Amino acid sequence: MWRDLLSIGRDAGSGGYRRYAWTGADAECRAWFRAQAEARGLTYEVDRNGNQWAWLGDPTGDGAVVTGSHLDSVPDGGAFDGPLGIVSSFAAVDELRARGVKPHRPLAITNFGDEEGARFGLACVGSRLAAGQLTAAKARELRDADGVSLPQAMEKAGYDPDAIGPDPERLGRIHAFVELHVEQGRALADTPHPVGLASAIWPHGRWRFDFAGEANHAGTTRLEDRRDPMLTYANTVLAARKKARLAGALATFGKVAVEPNGVNAIPSLVRGWLDSRAADQETLDAVVAEIEKAAKERGDRDGVDVAVVRESFTPVVEFEHALRDELGRILGGGTPVLPTGAGHDAGILSATVPTAMLFVRNPTGVSHSPAEHATEDDCVAGVQALADVLEGLAAR
Amino acid sequence: MWRDLLSIGRDAGSGGYRRYAWTGADAECRAWFRAQAEARGLTYEVDRNGNQWAWLGDPTGDGAVVTGSHLDSVPDGGAFDGPLGIVSSFAAVDELRARGVKPHRPLAITNFGDEEGARFGLACVGSRLAAGQLTAAKARELRDADGVSLPQAMEKAGYDPDAIGPDPERLGRIHAFVELHVEQGRALADTPHPVGLASAIWPHGRWRFDFAGEANHAGTTRLEDRRDPMLTYANTVLAARKKARLAGALATFGKVAVEPNGVNAIPSLVRGWLDSRAADQETLDAVVAEIEKAAKERGDRDGVDVAVVRESFTPVVEFEHALRDELGRILGGGTPVLPTGAGHDAGILSATVPTAMLFVRNPTGVSHSPAEHATEDDCVAGVQALADVLEGLAAR
Repeated sequence: MWRDLLSIGRDAGSGGYRRYAWTGADAECRAWFRAQAEARGLTYEVDRNGNQWAWLGDPTGDGAVVTGSHLDSVPDGGAFDGPLGIVSSFAAVDELRARGVKPHRPLAITNFGDEEGARFGLACVGSRLAAGQLTAAKARELRDADGVSLPQAMEKAGYDPDAIGPDPERLGRIHAFVELHVEQGRALADTPHPVGLASAIWPHGRWRFDFAGEANHAGTTRLEDRRDPMLTYANTVLAARKKARLAGALATFGKVAVEPNGVNAIPSLVRGWLDSRAADQETLDAVVAEIEKAAKERGDRDGVDVAVVRESFTPVVEFEHALRDELGRILGGGTPVLPTGAGHDAGILSATVPTAMLFVRNPTGVSHSPAEHATEDDCVAGVQALADVLEGLAAR
Repeated sequence: MWRDLLSIGRDAGSGGYRRYAWTGADAECRAWFRAQAEARGLTYEVDRNGNQWAWLGDPTGDGAVVTGSHLDSVPDGGAFDGPLGIVSSFAAVDELRARGVKPHRPLAITNFGDEEGARFGLACVGSRLAAGQLTAAKARELRDADGVSLPQAMEKAGYDPDAIGPDPERLGRIHAFVELHVEQGRALADTPHPVGLASAIWPHGRWRFDFAGEANHAGTTRLEDRRDPMLTYANTVLAARKKARLAGALATFGKVAVEPNGVNAIPSLVRGWLDSRAADQETLDAVVAEIEKAAKERGDRDGVDVAVVRESFTPVVEFEHALRDELGRILGGGTPVLPTGAGHDAGILSATVPTAMLFVRNPTGVSHSPAEHATEDDCVAGVQALADVLEGLAAR
C-alpha cells in the first residue's frame, strides 16, 4: 500500500515530493486513496469541497468516528507528513478487522485537500471550507504563482468549484476526529515512547513584508545614491531570528521574491514572507511587532518603504481535554502529551468537532524535507495505537 | 524612429522593458533595426554571431568606422540603455547626409546581440563571440532559467547556432569603434556638459554564492536545531555592503534563488549572486575575498556550507588614449572624461579594436530601471557629437 504511493509526485533531482493541490500528482494520490477504499469494500465519496471519504458503516449515520490526514505536500517535502496518517488509517481498519472488532459507530477515513497550501498560499483549504473558516468567495479569489485561480485548478482536475462551501451537516455527524501525524520535532526522540498525544497547536501566522526601493544599475550607482531593499530585507531576516530567540518563539523567512532579480540590477522590490509562532498569542503579537519595527527603522536608513500584510493567522488550538484524556486512558498511562507549532486539519476541525492528534516519533525531528523519517517499528506502533483508539471510540 | 521602438517588449505592469536575447521582443527590435537600415538604403547584414550591421559604403572595405550599441534589456530595464546608442547612430547618419558629408571610409551601425546577459547569465555574448573572448563551445553550454540552451534559442529565432565563433577578419577591418551610451551615474548631471568621454571601465565580475543548509519545518524546528541558510545569506548581504563601502568599491546582491521557497519551510539552499566592481583589480580582489570570508565565518555559526563560484569576470578596460584624445579634439576642449562601472560591448571590443565611448547626461543617474532618462536636448546633443566624431574619423 505504502509502496504504490511512494513514487507519486517525487522529484528525481531533490528526492522530495511535489504534490500540490489539484495537479497531476495530486490526482494520482487521490486515485490511490479511492483504490484503497474500494479494495477494502469501504463506501467512497467526495464532499462538496473535494475532500475524500472512505466509510466503514453508514456514511449518513450520526456519531461517526473519523480519522485521516492529507496527501498533498510542501515543495520537496518528505514521504511522511500527511500520507503517514492516511496509510495508518487504512492499516488500522485492516487491524480492526483482523481483531474481529465490530464498530457500532460509523467509521471514516478522510483525505483533506490542500492542507499545505503550497500552491495557493493558504493552508488547510479543504478543512477550512468545510468548517466555514474560509468562505467560498474568498477561496475563489486564491491564485497560484502562474495566476491560475482555485476554481480553474479544481475544474481542470475534474471537480466542481461552484459546489464549495461550508459542510455543517457532515461535520455535525462526527463524534470525534483523530489525526495521526509524524512528529515534526524531537520531543519523542529521546523517550521510550513511539507515540504521543497532542495538547495544543501554537498560534501561528504568515506575514508578507514588501520592501520597496529603487531599481538601478549595480555597476554605476554610488552606494550613497542607492535605495536597495535587499539590505533592509537582510537586516529584517537577522532581526526576526534575534527577536524570536529572545522571546522563546519561532520566526522564519523561508520564501522570497525579488524584482527584477537581475545580477547587475539593484532590486526595486524584495518581498519576504515571515512565518512566526509562539506558545501564546501575546508573545506572538509582541515578536511580530518587534520585527516590523526593526524592518521599518532599517527601511528609514535605506530609503526603503516597508509594508506588512498579515496573510493568514490561526489562533491557539487547545485540543479537547475530555477526548485527549479518553485517548490517554485507551493508550495507557505515561503516553507523552506535547504541543506543536505546526498547523493541521485537526486544528481547523477542533473549533467544530471534538478532535485529537497522535504523533509518531521522528528520530531526526526533521519535516518538510526528504530527511523526515519514522522507523518501521514506530509506524507499526502508530497503527496499533490508532486501531486501539478507533476501537475504543467506535466499538465500546 | 524612436517611437516605433518604444512599445516593443514593454511590460504593462512595471513600465519596464523585457527584451531578452532571442525572444519575440528581441526579434521585433531586430526587425526594427533592419527596417531602419533599409529605409536609409544602408547595406544590411547579420554576422555569424547574429549581430546586425548596417553599412554606408563597402561592407568588405578596410579601415571602417563603426558605431552602435545593443537593443536587448535587463529585466524591467529603461528605454535608453542600449537603444539610445543605436537610435543616435541612425540619426547621426541622417545628420551626416544633411551636412553633405562624403565619408571616405566605410561606416557601419551595429546591434550586438545579448549585451545584458539577462537570459543566459553572461553579458556581451555577441561581442565576446566575435572577439574570441567566448568560445563557441562554451556559448553552446549556456542555458536560461527554463533550461533552454543558447543554440535552441537561436535556432527558434531563425539563426544558425552552428555558425557562431570568432570573427577576426570582420573586426580586423575596423579602424575605430565608438559606442554612444546613456550615462549610468551622475558625473555629468551637475556639469554644463551634455556629453562626456569614457576613460576606463572598472574591473568587474559576478560571483555565485551557494548557501546550503537543511530544509525543515518552520513551525516545529527549534531555533537551535536549525541550519538555516537564509540567515547566512542575510548576513553576507550586509557584510558585502560594509566591505564595499570601506574600500570605495561596489558590491550588490540583486538576484537570489531559494529552495524550496515555501513560507513554512526553512530553506535547504539559498543562492545569491554578487556583482562587485572597483577602480582597480587589487581592490576588487580584496573586497570579494573579504565578503567570502565573512560568509564562511557566519556559515560555520549557522551550520551552513558556503561555496563560491566566479561566473564571469572582466578585467579593467582602459580605452585607447590616442582615439580618446582625437575625440576630445573633435568635440572641443573641456569635454569631461569619466570612468564607468558598467560593462559594454565597447569594453569587449577594446582588446581587439581601437575603441571609444560617448556618454549622454542622465539627470537622475538611474539606469537599468524605467526611471533612466536623458532630456531631448541632451539626446540631440549626443547625436550632434556622434555625427561630429563620425565625420572627423571617416571623412577627414
